[in-house]
Amino acid sequence: MVQIEQDILGKNDQYAGANRSWFQAQGILALNLVSSPGSGKTSLLTRSIQDLKDRYPLAVIEGDQQTSHDADRIRATGVPALQINTGKGCHLDAHMIGHAIESLPLAPRSLLFIENVGNLVCPAAFDLGEAHKVAILSVTEGEDKPLKYPDMFHAADLMLLNKIDLLPYLDFDVEQCIGYARRVNPSIQVLQVSARSGEGLEAWYAWLGERMAG
Amino acid sequence: MVQIEQDILGKNDQYAGANRSWFQAQGILALNLVSSPGSGKTSLLTRSIQDLKDRYPLAVIEGDQQTSHDADRIRATGVPALQINTGKGCHLDAHMIGHAIESLPLAPRSLLFIENVGNLVCPAAFDLGEAHKVAILSVTEGEDKPLKYPDMFHAADLMLLNKIDLLPYLDFDVEQCIGYARRVNPSIQVLQVSARSGEGLEAWYAWLGERMAG
Repeated sequence: MVQIEQDILGKNDQYAGANRSWFQAQGILALNLVSSPGSGKTSLLTRSIQDLKDRYPLAVIEGDQQTSHDADRIRATGVPALQINTGKGCHLDAHMIGHAIESLPLAPRSLLFIENVGNLVCPAAFDLGEAHKVAILSVTEGEDKPLKYPDMFHAADLMLLNKIDLLPYLDFDVEQCIGYARRVNPSIQVLQVSARSGEGLEAWYAWLGERMAG
Repeated sequence: MVQIEQDILGKNDQYAGANRSWFQAQGILALNLVSSPGSGKTSLLTRSIQDLKDRYPLAVIEGDQQTSHDADRIRATGVPALQINTGKGCHLDAHMIGHAIESLPLAPRSLLFIENVGNLVCPAAFDLGEAHKVAILSVTEGEDKPLKYPDMFHAADLMLLNKIDLLPYLDFDVEQCIGYARRVNPSIQVLQVSARSGEGLEAWYAWLGERMAG
């Protein structure tokens, strides 16, 4: 089994390398958004697109086991979106992304959001060729998630702590959660946001802006 | 890859069958609790144990990628709990459960809760030998999860809609969510609960009581 796993990951890494080279050549910033189901990834993405679509060319690849709801929600904003249904699969892989970028209209110097399948385990191991993994954790999920799913928080460069508008109604310790995330990944950046209230979104857009300029 | 998957699932089903026979011979009701990370499974379980430990012999098997936090939380209630760390793995399997029941003190006619790894994809395919899968979905996660992760909600006999104390602060349509769950599984039972406020828990305990008597 270990040999099979190595073969699969080795093959994935080859595809991911090809995607990464292509993104760099085109000046495209690709982000791999990872989280639990229900962390609010798609709502955050929809709101971010509304706020950013006049600043950069945008595009979205959506991963889900089934349905094209999320791509439909994105396309309603006027931004091109492609849905990948993984069926039984628990994550996107680099080969899927390679096919997606063949069919998605992607302008040079675009910002490409790849919304992975909602899952804090499997997507951690599969490089898609992205510049950064961004982990979204909602404050309704409990402080301990970075410790329980360390591979994911170790692999992410940024953690967006989402749904902070709900903090008054929850027993959630923000500092403890950030401490746990730094325990598995001392260099992880953390931004507190609410896709509903808009709080914290400017800092997220600034983070994106730095990387789009870079 | 399809052949490998069939071999793995075939082997798992053999172990699951052995577990199921043993549970039946001992009169043990084994439940496989599945959900996203952060749905409140462990809090619901801790509260249920407090309320039920004088009614039945109880035991818990906890699955997590890492940490033994959850088993520690359960053991603090005085009930035996065994933690399985899956490492890179995204679900428990029947072989792990077979080993766990060798080392866990399990009285005849016990109620055994198996808390799977927080993941709405992978645990759906792996029978552990349980009598029922119980899917916990929190109302913070959005109505669409049964459609996006249909295998899991198809495999579950009961959906516990958790954290209903937060409904006043959310845009969550309970009836729509239940409708989506019934679309993928017309016979699924649904109970609305809050581990924090205690609302709905008596109906959940009644559901358990019927099956403990059966």
